[in-house]
Amino acid sequence: MNAVTDDAARLFDTAGRAARAAAATVARAPSPVKDAALRAAAARLRAESAAILAANAADLDAAPGLTPAFRDRLVLNPARIEAMAKGLEEVAALPDPVGRVLAEWTRPNGLRFTRVAQPLGVIGMIFESRPNVTADAGALCLKAGSAVILRGGSESAHSARAIAACLRAGLAEVGLPEDVIQLAPTQDRAFVGAMLRGSGFVDLIIPRGGKGLVTRVLEEARVPVLAHAEGLCHTFIHAAADHAMARTVLLDAKLRRTGVCGATETLLVDAAVAPTLLPLLVADLAAKGCGFRADDRARAICPELPAATDEDFATEWLDAMLSIAVVDGVEGALAHIRRFGSEHTEAIITEDAAAAEAFLSGIDSAVGLWNASTQFCDGGEFGFGAEIGIATGRMHARGPVGLEQLCTYRYRVVGTGQVRG
Amino acid sequence: MNAVTDDAARLFDTAGRAARAAAATVARAPSPVKDAALRAAAARLRAESAAILAANAADLDAAPGLTPAFRDRLVLNPARIEAMAKGLEEVAALPDPVGRVLAEWTRPNGLRFTRVAQPLGVIGMIFESRPNVTADAGALCLKAGSAVILRGGSESAHSARAIAACLRAGLAEVGLPEDVIQLAPTQDRAFVGAMLRGSGFVDLIIPRGGKGLVTRVLEEARVPVLAHAEGLCHTFIHAAADHAMARTVLLDAKLRRTGVCGATETLLVDAAVAPTLLPLLVADLAAKGCGFRADDRARAICPELPAATDEDFATEWLDAMLSIAVVDGVEGALAHIRRFGSEHTEAIITEDAAAAEAFLSGIDSAVGLWNASTQFCDGGEFGFGAEIGIATGRMHARGPVGLEQLCTYRYRVVGTGQVRG
Repeated sequence: MNAVTDDAARLFDTAGRAARAAAATVARAPSPVKDAALRAAAARLRAESAAILAANAADLDAAPGLTPAFRDRLVLNPARIEAMAKGLEEVAALPDPVGRVLAEWTRPNGLRFTRVAQPLGVIGMIFESRPNVTADAGALCLKAGSAVILRGGSESAHSARAIAACLRAGLAEVGLPEDVIQLAPTQDRAFVGAMLRGSGFVDLIIPRGGKGLVTRVLEEARVPVLAHAEGLCHTFIHAAADHAMARTVLLDAKLRRTGVCGATETLLVDAAVAPTLLPLLVADLAAKGCGFRADDRARAICPELPAATDEDFATEWLDAMLSIAVVDGVEGALAHIRRFGSEHTEAIITEDAAAAEAFLSGIDSAVGLWNASTQFCDGGEFGFGAEIGIATGRMHARGPVGLEQLCTYRYRVVGTGQVRG
Repeated sequence: MNAVTDDAARLFDTAGRAARAAAATVARAPSPVKDAALRAAAARLRAESAAILAANAADLDAAPGLTPAFRDRLVLNPARIEAMAKGLEEVAALPDPVGRVLAEWTRPNGLRFTRVAQPLGVIGMIFESRPNVTADAGALCLKAGSAVILRGGSESAHSARAIAACLRAGLAEVGLPEDVIQLAPTQDRAFVGAMLRGSGFVDLIIPRGGKGLVTRVLEEARVPVLAHAEGLCHTFIHAAADHAMARTVLLDAKLRRTGVCGATETLLVDAAVAPTLLPLLVADLAAKGCGFRADDRARAICPELPAATDEDFATEWLDAMLSIAVVDGVEGALAHIRRFGSEHTEAIITEDAAAAEAFLSGIDSAVGLWNASTQFCDGGEFGFGAEIGIATGRMHARGPVGLEQLCTYRYRVVGTGQVRG
């Protein structure tokens, strides 16, 4: 889709070479230097607050027809700039993921093996018009010892440039190459095509945005991608659920924030408790403004609910809307999840440990929860300090992607002259 | 290149669905059942020895014009069949990689997190005409809880089918689905194209073979690939090397086996010791029939050596041929490796720990060795018991890919009704 033009290839070649060179330096930068760069960048964000707000105003002026939700994601104010600055300082305070010893052992011939965490290299980040992603993603890649090329949405181009300038100034201040953090030099989509091709300059693509964006990236990329196309998360209320817990957790899982990928999109209720519990669950959610799509078994209990189609069960609502199915025990829940799920996050509510074990073993999703809200699928909640995204693929990193997951590894093997012979 | 025809798409759809269903079962198979299947398959290989040899004879008859090296890889005999059977029993004896707890922690809100090793799903293995890969790769994928679709070279098709029949009989004997291990139902290259596309049925492609095969796979695949396109490995003899060790290790690194990816292809000699050491190293190797390509600095010391071009330094010889460059210390060695290396395996020979540290930190390769032969880059030598290949990408697994590396992970999160709120 994003055909690569000669112009884009030339621009990407320049950016890619600069990123590769910067990556070689930042990969070996001592932790205090990387952290000093992050704190210097935070100070710049605060000092350049007026310039950033002016750039943001230019973005908003250039796109008068935005929806309120889009505009809300795009708009900056002093509090949001302060939050970005604090975010950089928090990343500075996290432990350095590079150089951690992941495993070590000695072989009978005396060779000593060490598996050591190493930076990935050059990361290509493709995202929609959220100015804060420039700061967050730039900071995480820098801390993880990688260079990054950031390509954000066109509507936020001025804001992103103003923020990136602060990050690059922070790098320069401590003597690190500014090109550890680069913005795409053009909004031309052919440049995105070149990024996805990689050409030896990009080791990993992280797309962040809607399903359309991520699906396009997965289809076109010639380099590895860490991403989730959707978070069609399920909460299963088992026959042995604590009723009060089920009600509290479901309310949070569905409605705490409806637009996040960890929000529950489908409620599965065990047939054994559906007649008593489903009306209560529906009433709780309806009182908060939630809508429903229910299967025949659920409508036999709550006839007022609109009927669900298969397509409804395959829909990530990202809204105050819930699909509901009544299922027979853990096996019924697993069958539904295998058919409609996205291998992101699923929860079971039960007091029965054997049922929980069967559920957690039976799903293939990146995250399975027992007696907790699906909205806990978040790097911060996992204790990672920060996350650059959430992955549902099978490789390298699954679930929240924090600093550890932004690293790969290498082996060091130390001998005393051993030969295979 | 491997355009997908309708026929190939249909065949792949059938194989892919069968693999996905088999994967769901084998992912949850208890270790003793998987191990029993492997031992039953080993018994079948021994019992069906005559049939396997007959199939192999048919392969050899069908391709009379093979080179001796190709024929040697293709030919089976009772000893090689016994080695395959023993290999299956050795994989059965290895610890089960599935279900290992990789990390666990508890958050202040009481949520308990566990990161658990999980099967990858469905693996597509593409390899050249080595019948034993059918047994080795099939066994490793089965033990790692994944299903595999094996597509070997056409010249070994009869042999592969006879071997795969034994593996499938072993699976059936213990009640596991035969389709945990499938052979491609056709040698049509359009089927390879369909495998590389994945279409939701293949989670990982592992190509094993020459650079041409691997490069084509990396170019075309739409799913993750674990592979190395080449092993252009370097041995660097530092100024502070023990001379006797340098000579012994280099001989092994270059000549133990010249056709393996961990063989040293380029010798880098520190300028400080080149005048005394290089003539000895060259004489050792020349006495064993090794040829050379040397840069001007090396030829100033050993004028009889043929001159090397840049292309020579970029060549993985896989033969009794060595490129030689004289470099200035660790920095010179690193600069050469960054320019010409393939991020596979590099070794330094030195008694100077600071130089070794600088070298091991300075390379980006999957494996770095200090005072040992590059030929140790091998899953068996790493203590993995067996390997399915060696990876030089940045994701998931680097270096030898054993059972652990054939797994991904999932999170289990256990709460007591926690909500994000």
